[in-house]
Amino acid sequence: MAEKTSSPTGYTGNILRINLSNNSISVEHPDDKFYRTYIGGTALIGYYLLKELKPGIDPLGPDNKLVFSSGVITGIPSAGTGRNGVGAKSPLTNGWGDAQAGGHWGAELKRAGWDAIIVEGQAVKPVYIWINDDKVEIKAASHLWGKTTAEVQKLIRNELGDDKIRVTQTGIAGEKLVRIAGISNDITRYYGRCGLGAVMGSKKLKAIAVRGKKGLPLADTERVQQVAKWLVDNKQLLSWATTWGTSAGVAGLNAMGILPTFNFREGQFDGFNDISGPTMVETILIDRDTCFACPINCKRVVKVDAPYNVDPTYGGPEYETIGALGSLCGIRDLKAIAHGNQTCNAYGLDTIGVGTTIAFAMECYENGILTKEDTDGIELKFGNAEAMMKMVEMIARREGIGDVLAEGCMRAAEKFGRKAVKYAMHIKGQEVPMHDPRGKVGMGIGYATSPTGADHMHNMHDTDVVRVNPIMRALGLHDSIPPTELSPAKVRMFQYMTNLQHFRNCALICAFMPYSPQHMIELINGATGWNLSVWELMKVGERALALARAFNAREGFTAKDDYLPERFYKGVSTGPLKDKGIEKKAMKQAIRLYYEMSGWDPVSAAPTAAKLHELDLSWVVKELEASIIKK
Amino acid sequence: MAEKTSSPTGYTGNILRINLSNNSISVEHPDDKFYRTYIGGTALIGYYLLKELKPGIDPLGPDNKLVFSSGVITGIPSAGTGRNGVGAKSPLTNGWGDAQAGGHWGAELKRAGWDAIIVEGQAVKPVYIWINDDKVEIKAASHLWGKTTAEVQKLIRNELGDDKIRVTQTGIAGEKLVRIAGISNDITRYYGRCGLGAVMGSKKLKAIAVRGKKGLPLADTERVQQVAKWLVDNKQLLSWATTWGTSAGVAGLNAMGILPTFNFREGQFDGFNDISGPTMVETILIDRDTCFACPINCKRVVKVDAPYNVDPTYGGPEYETIGALGSLCGIRDLKAIAHGNQTCNAYGLDTIGVGTTIAFAMECYENGILTKEDTDGIELKFGNAEAMMKMVEMIARREGIGDVLAEGCMRAAEKFGRKAVKYAMHIKGQEVPMHDPRGKVGMGIGYATSPTGADHMHNMHDTDVVRVNPIMRALGLHDSIPPTELSPAKVRMFQYMTNLQHFRNCALICAFMPYSPQHMIELINGATGWNLSVWELMKVGERALALARAFNAREGFTAKDDYLPERFYKGVSTGPLKDKGIEKKAMKQAIRLYYEMSGWDPVSAAPTAAKLHELDLSWVVKELEASIIKK
Repeated sequence: MAEKTSSPTGYTGNILRINLSNNSISVEHPDDKFYRTYIGGTALIGYYLLKELKPGIDPLGPDNKLVFSSGVITGIPSAGTGRNGVGAKSPLTNGWGDAQAGGHWGAELKRAGWDAIIVEGQAVKPVYIWINDDKVEIKAASHLWGKTTAEVQKLIRNELGDDKIRVTQTGIAGEKLVRIAGISNDITRYYGRCGLGAVMGSKKLKAIAVRGKKGLPLADTERVQQVAKWLVDNKQLLSWATTWGTSAGVAGLNAMGILPTFNFREGQFDGFNDISGPTMVETILIDRDTCFACPINCKRVVKVDAPYNVDPTYGGPEYETIGALGSLCGIRDLKAIAHGNQTCNAYGLDTIGVGTTIAFAMECYENGILTKEDTDGIELKFGNAEAMMKMVEMIARREGIGDVLAEGCMRAAEKFGRKAVKYAMHIKGQEVPMHDPRGKVGMGIGYATSPTGADHMHNMHDTDVVRVNPIMRALGLHDSIPPTELSPAKVRMFQYMTNLQHFRNCALICAFMPYSPQHMIELINGATGWNLSVWELMKVGERALALARAFNAREGFTAKDDYLPERFYKGVSTGPLKDKGIEKKAMKQAIRLYYEMSGWDPVSAAPTAAKLHELDLSWVVKELEASIIKK
Repeated sequence: MAEKTSSPTGYTGNILRINLSNNSISVEHPDDKFYRTYIGGTALIGYYLLKELKPGIDPLGPDNKLVFSSGVITGIPSAGTGRNGVGAKSPLTNGWGDAQAGGHWGAELKRAGWDAIIVEGQAVKPVYIWINDDKVEIKAASHLWGKTTAEVQKLIRNELGDDKIRVTQTGIAGEKLVRIAGISNDITRYYGRCGLGAVMGSKKLKAIAVRGKKGLPLADTERVQQVAKWLVDNKQLLSWATTWGTSAGVAGLNAMGILPTFNFREGQFDGFNDISGPTMVETILIDRDTCFACPINCKRVVKVDAPYNVDPTYGGPEYETIGALGSLCGIRDLKAIAHGNQTCNAYGLDTIGVGTTIAFAMECYENGILTKEDTDGIELKFGNAEAMMKMVEMIARREGIGDVLAEGCMRAAEKFGRKAVKYAMHIKGQEVPMHDPRGKVGMGIGYATSPTGADHMHNMHDTDVVRVNPIMRALGLHDSIPPTELSPAKVRMFQYMTNLQHFRNCALICAFMPYSPQHMIELINGATGWNLSVWELMKVGERALALARAFNAREGFTAKDDYLPERFYKGVSTGPLKDKGIEKKAMKQAIRLYYEMSGWDPVSAAPTAAKLHELDLSWVVKELEASIIKK
């Protein structure tokens, strides 16, 4: 790619490429159009993975690449811009994998002078990468192997002699190639989904430590500050997040009948009040934490005494964790959930993947598919908090039945036999998160069609809201649609909001921020000096998704892989959705309509050549012709 | 439709419906979402025509409707917002017809308190409509019938006793149902294309006189004024238009080999210098005129003494007229062209339709298909200025061969016989304007696919520029593409810019204004108080086009009707495009790709159900199912 002709602002213009097989370190300088086209995160990762990975490679082998990417506004002084993205071929789905995490690491990377890191190959012995502004080293990490995340961060900071170093790392679970392992920033912020912790583990890359002391030049600092000020002036819009955190809505979801319970068999849970955000505030909460430049403090910090011994270092459970380790497993003991959360964070596990896999095992146990013989004597019943806590650790360490569950519920079900399959709540191998699509049908389309499988971070906002909000209105979505209505208008709403969410995952903007598309534009143009429009913004989101879909198509995924677990087509036994499952035919029609709206082929489910050309992705047409058409 | 809950700003909230068969006058009040969805102009017209016209009606019968529509920023105090749109089923194409004109009439209509007028039925005797703020009358117009446009305006102003009245009218040509008749604002601004003057004539509606004395409330006057100031501060961007007018580029086009000459047989003309904008300035120009709120003064005012006797009242020729009555007919006599322009303006003719039809007749004459017997003794050869001037008048009056040519070149060719057909430069029945697609291939796609047939005002900007401009960059079009390159990237550029141009035709923004999409948003949001985004803006444009395509599909148009005249697949004999015609196969592929990018069916060429749903046009799906699928 060409050298830039002027100094970049917003982005650094430097992408680091590190090959762990041969310890080579090199730097690339994409041009300005590259950054404007791909922005960062999902789209930037998609560019490299689609260009550089051969289809059919082993996700845990040396040919996979792990790309960490910030975006062009990561690290600017406005709330919600501190996230970072990572992607690779997923060992959980054997398809497209990407995830995002908050914290401070992404902003630190930018201030060290780097937009992204491409990690290639596999080290023979454990290593970590140390980035100190311009200086990049590959360092031995055998002494960090097998250590908990908090220990690793401490050891790295100590040996490098700087307490301000930010650490992203895989945990013990990732070392052991657990397919539901994640990667953490700052111990408590998780790139949870798609099993990317195992990819990092397979490369024997324990951590990436970063210290950035450079400034980040902005084209128009005042323009950025105006949005920052708007957010501060309007932070009451997020007072729910500050006060109660992400589990603020547990009681509301329970009332609506969509609090995932007993492995999605039910949508209401007797113990909902014991595990709600307000209850956490009243009981175990001791502090609130926040991400780079953010005044919201939505992150929980909890402390629980013996016998739970939950250490504030590991933060506290988010809503997804409350659901997955709580109601989904029929558990109303908040302290046990906090303990499970701590284990996941200490060992580097995706709490959603873990919770949904344990709930699956519990249902197998209750149905006689598993017995105490299989579970090392543990009574793996819904509601058994002790069993849940034990099982989390066994998964992380691959001990006993944990070794099977560490493969995720899809592969575990294959092992447990035909009868177990219907209890495995996954799509494409990825476990379903804590949003019941029976009461949020837009999310249902999203689960079915996300290139990452069942995933709420690629599509949740805001398709299933009861009333359209200013963000939606700014895109021309003016009519409110009931959350359970599966109409063409809902498909349109889903398509727009999913493309916007993909844009957030490129610019790495926190999905909770009430930024309108115009605010996002102000931040980006203020940082970069571009004249990006909301049209381009939406096209970046669509482009990111198209790249991921193309990646999957090349790996052999087709329309047949876009489905919902059968359970969601049946109702639950209490609440507003009693006996009301999603209508299967309507969902199939909605998915088909979504394909057509998106310019995806009805059979291959890949973007058509026309759509790829329209998204300025003509180069992808050749990629797909070379692989898909051959089949 | 629902009543509005708050006072509208930008738009008036009042749409006037007048039935000339029974003299009924009624008022409708669409809701705010209607205005945000359709904005005005093409999309608003499309809404009514598609909802209210039955397929297959006679365009010149009582069932056709003529809709005049402003947009939500028409009449605000910023340059380029004084245009107005009109639409009906076209008697020239038997399909979708719409056209836009500048001047002051649209702004006057808004200040009278009306956004649009739907004219239905047919009067028995000639009438005109008089709108004096809230007061609306249907008045007798037999005394205006058969009068020139300047006479009509004068008579109306005199009898109503107000010199500030603005008049839109059809001319003598429209009275005589000439299919290439237009409608004028202020005598000199033309809704030229699609034969809409004949529709007005068929309704025996001579004119609509308007006087508006109300204010036009704006949500944020300062926001509008900032853009207005920007335009004034940057009016040097349009200094070419001020100085030389639209024919500034004649010499440049000739050098590029794309100055339409001898009925598109050639692209270079010996006499180009005699008919150029600079020559006009040096010879016959006596003044410059401008439209509502515009500081540019691009309109020409010319005066020519006997024997031409061109009266400044009728303005002066634009580039299209210079080309159509000049080089296309091989005529280098600027005074004769000015005379022909005056005749068109006085009689209400589309100068493009007239010029291209006369050039067609000249080529027929030179090839022996027509003889002096057919032409009342006129030697109808290329270069005969006298013959051209005479022919314009004969067309307007339907005298002699003019009665045949008044039907437009497609129908005239059918009358003249098989050999004449190849000389008729039209698409869908509409005559080709003065842009040679051999050197502007984006325009070629536009000609072939425009719902109005060969038409430059639905797609010209800016697909074929040599270097991308800030407007294009704001939509993510960053790579310049040679004007003759027919690549997927060009198709993408064409699609984006055509949708933007359709938006201009909804908001009624002058295509010469260097407003970026963001400027347009500022004007619209400043006027209305909305939070419209560039995304919505582009979707309005796409929606407008989809409505027009759906209209045509319902009338039986298919992909077969999207073609170019064969002549454009052959080269010319001099200049850069010597022997270089458009490659036919590449053009067909480009059109097919454009369909796919746009979500149009490859056979019916209509928007698919998915695309209609995506554009919030679910109601159109039923319209198409009821008609197209039946066939």
